[in-house]
Amino acid sequence: MPQESSAAQPSGTQLDSWLGSYAERTAGMRTSEIRALFSVASRPEVVSLAGGMPNLDALPLNVVAELNRDLVLESGDTALQYCSGQGIVKLREQILDVMRLEGIEAHPDDVVVTTGSQQAIDLVTRVFINPGDVIIAEGPSYVGALGVFSQYQAEVVHIQMDADGIVPELLEEKLENLKQAGKPVKLLYTVPNFHNPAGVTLSLERRPRILEIAKRYGVLVLEDNPYGLLGFDQEPMPALRSMDEDGVVYLGSFSKTFAPGYRVGWAVAPHAVREKLVIASEATILSPSAYSQMAVSSYLENADWKAQIQSFRNMYQGRRDAMIQALSDRLPQLSWNVPNGGFYVWVTLPEGLDSKAMLPRAVTQRVAYVPGTGFYSDDNGHRNMRLSFCYPTPERIAEGIRRLSNVISGEMDLIEIFGSSSSPASRTRGVQSPTPDLF
Amino acid sequence: MPQESSAAQPSGTQLDSWLGSYAERTAGMRTSEIRALFSVASRPEVVSLAGGMPNLDALPLNVVAELNRDLVLESGDTALQYCSGQGIVKLREQILDVMRLEGIEAHPDDVVVTTGSQQAIDLVTRVFINPGDVIIAEGPSYVGALGVFSQYQAEVVHIQMDADGIVPELLEEKLENLKQAGKPVKLLYTVPNFHNPAGVTLSLERRPRILEIAKRYGVLVLEDNPYGLLGFDQEPMPALRSMDEDGVVYLGSFSKTFAPGYRVGWAVAPHAVREKLVIASEATILSPSAYSQMAVSSYLENADWKAQIQSFRNMYQGRRDAMIQALSDRLPQLSWNVPNGGFYVWVTLPEGLDSKAMLPRAVTQRVAYVPGTGFYSDDNGHRNMRLSFCYPTPERIAEGIRRLSNVISGEMDLIEIFGSSSSPASRTRGVQSPTPDLF
Repeated sequence: MPQESSAAQPSGTQLDSWLGSYAERTAGMRTSEIRALFSVASRPEVVSLAGGMPNLDALPLNVVAELNRDLVLESGDTALQYCSGQGIVKLREQILDVMRLEGIEAHPDDVVVTTGSQQAIDLVTRVFINPGDVIIAEGPSYVGALGVFSQYQAEVVHIQMDADGIVPELLEEKLENLKQAGKPVKLLYTVPNFHNPAGVTLSLERRPRILEIAKRYGVLVLEDNPYGLLGFDQEPMPALRSMDEDGVVYLGSFSKTFAPGYRVGWAVAPHAVREKLVIASEATILSPSAYSQMAVSSYLENADWKAQIQSFRNMYQGRRDAMIQALSDRLPQLSWNVPNGGFYVWVTLPEGLDSKAMLPRAVTQRVAYVPGTGFYSDDNGHRNMRLSFCYPTPERIAEGIRRLSNVISGEMDLIEIFGSSSSPASRTRGVQSPTPDLF
Repeated sequence: MPQESSAAQPSGTQLDSWLGSYAERTAGMRTSEIRALFSVASRPEVVSLAGGMPNLDALPLNVVAELNRDLVLESGDTALQYCSGQGIVKLREQILDVMRLEGIEAHPDDVVVTTGSQQAIDLVTRVFINPGDVIIAEGPSYVGALGVFSQYQAEVVHIQMDADGIVPELLEEKLENLKQAGKPVKLLYTVPNFHNPAGVTLSLERRPRILEIAKRYGVLVLEDNPYGLLGFDQEPMPALRSMDEDGVVYLGSFSKTFAPGYRVGWAVAPHAVREKLVIASEATILSPSAYSQMAVSSYLENADWKAQIQSFRNMYQGRRDAMIQALSDRLPQLSWNVPNGGFYVWVTLPEGLDSKAMLPRAVTQRVAYVPGTGFYSDDNGHRNMRLSFCYPTPERIAEGIRRLSNVISGEMDLIEIFGSSSSPASRTRGVQSPTPDLF
């Protein structure tokens, strides 16, 4: 991972003259301690099972290169100019084709193009969240979303998942309790397909039930779906948005099905919400990059994007298999789920181990992962880690798990001698800020 | 202007189920009445003196096309991937070369690359502003910044300019009054060069005085400088940041010196502030587009960007001359400044005319401008309008001013018969939301 910031050698003023001036929302904005570790983890000798970067080896770069040249020659005056804040119409129409694969019927006017779907999370939070408002999110949940929620001073309440995703009964119970307590619950944030980091998928049977409960409690569902088309041996599930037009804001992205470097994602929202998202987006960036949008649009028009997604699916399935095989061979004392798509395996360590405390030792042994604590806004996740199989080759994955098994054996030995390996220092709240390493 | 959103024909749900759920900060997020007018104004038969779009005719598209192709062929795996949240190192180093033209000495680590400098305005506001905090801004001020400030519920206090920019004595008096009133003043937002919309430039003599006053009152200066290199017959002024490293956050942009379609801007900030800006940016967009950054970087490396800026300066100077000439010929009853760079002429109408009330009649006569009210957070600007000379040809500018003179003659006739032309309906506060038309 190209973590280029030379955070270890800052220049300029060291004393902070502005310490007394910051907004309250910056309370959580501090560089997390694992950030420095990840800059070490980006060295080539380290097998990183931490990053969520897609593997782009399969992309036809010569085709993409020609498309980019033609874009400038044929439409440079538009592609290099500002565009409308909502995004260009043609791309919004093509996005409808992509979403149709998950059963979504929408109108181009319902779509807002954003700078990656991360920006869409930010915009929805901006439009709905007052400080202290509650957001329900799966536990664990996407670290980048938790970072946004923290900056808007939301209170995140985690909801437990099982192998079929959010448990409807638990959701209902939690919402009822929050209602009794007079808490304003605004959003249910969910990654229903091949969850980041938990790897699970919300079952078809539960989808309408989750929607019904959310509607009954007046909670808007924020459906974040970067991985929905990356299932391994199943067709895409119908999106929550395909079942409820007014109760869901749907977020999509080209980062995992094409390329993240253009930063093109989108939101689909009910009309009045969409209008506010556009105004919020214009204040944030004026307009999304016309160039990026037209490059993605040209790719969708001229390349066989569905075949490309199939090739991504096959590649990731092979890497998933390599990781599960290596875990079975090397680390039978751990437990994990077997994801049927996406990028991630969520691992539970044996009692007494602490993934965050163990990370420096893992990096020393040239393997990196993301400690589970990063995916909770409370103090959970110490016994979990997220392992990504998206970026390294199957051979590197096997080598990474081998190294990890050495680290864990060492920890187990320590426990036998000294008891728990977790140090009090690691008992702080999770990752304060998402880093691009953690997607 | 390609205002593509079909806002006039919304689809989907018309009743807003979420009306009770929005955050308080959305109070100002409504589609402004002039937005619909501007979608009319984007028709080719209308001469738009409203937009702030740079004219890209002079760009060597064939060169840019080849650079984009080579970028994908040679570095596609990096350009299409995520990158660090702060932006790629090479571009940050090149940005130092650009800023050196205005006397700024900085370190690549001081620079944060953003999705246009608009995003940098958003990030600085996010990091510093609690609801109710005061931001001092020139009156008039950039509409896009006012939109951000409003979304963070800042109180904007305008400070008057004369032909040399902010008047130091008035700034000091205002800050003293605000201090006496116990108001928390966090930022002084200023566009020191070729101001948008006022066209004036802060004089060299006043620059250190403004900085000294701001420092004395503990106010951070937010120096927004998209036009600094676009002076007509003068060399660039030393930036405020070149005189004070710790008291200024400097914002730059490639939108006016190269092309806005990539959405590449940047902020330079004191170390501790920079660190928070990066964390805030990662929550908003994870990372800026690697593709866009590398495309700009490649342009800076391989094209003669300084000669290109010189050619932009010549082009805009010719258009400025055409506009001033046409105003002198056709509308001697108005007053205006003669900007020595940038994109804008700020016009004052005769007593009794109202630029906002007049706009529909102007559009009917196929000429568009931005009413002055959009550039104030209070009820000022009714007698002002911003005329942009950046985009239309000199011939179209002359024709636009001819049409405008007809509109104004008509208004003057009405005043003679009925008194003031301003209608009570126009007496609402300025533009609630910036639109990409208004930059």
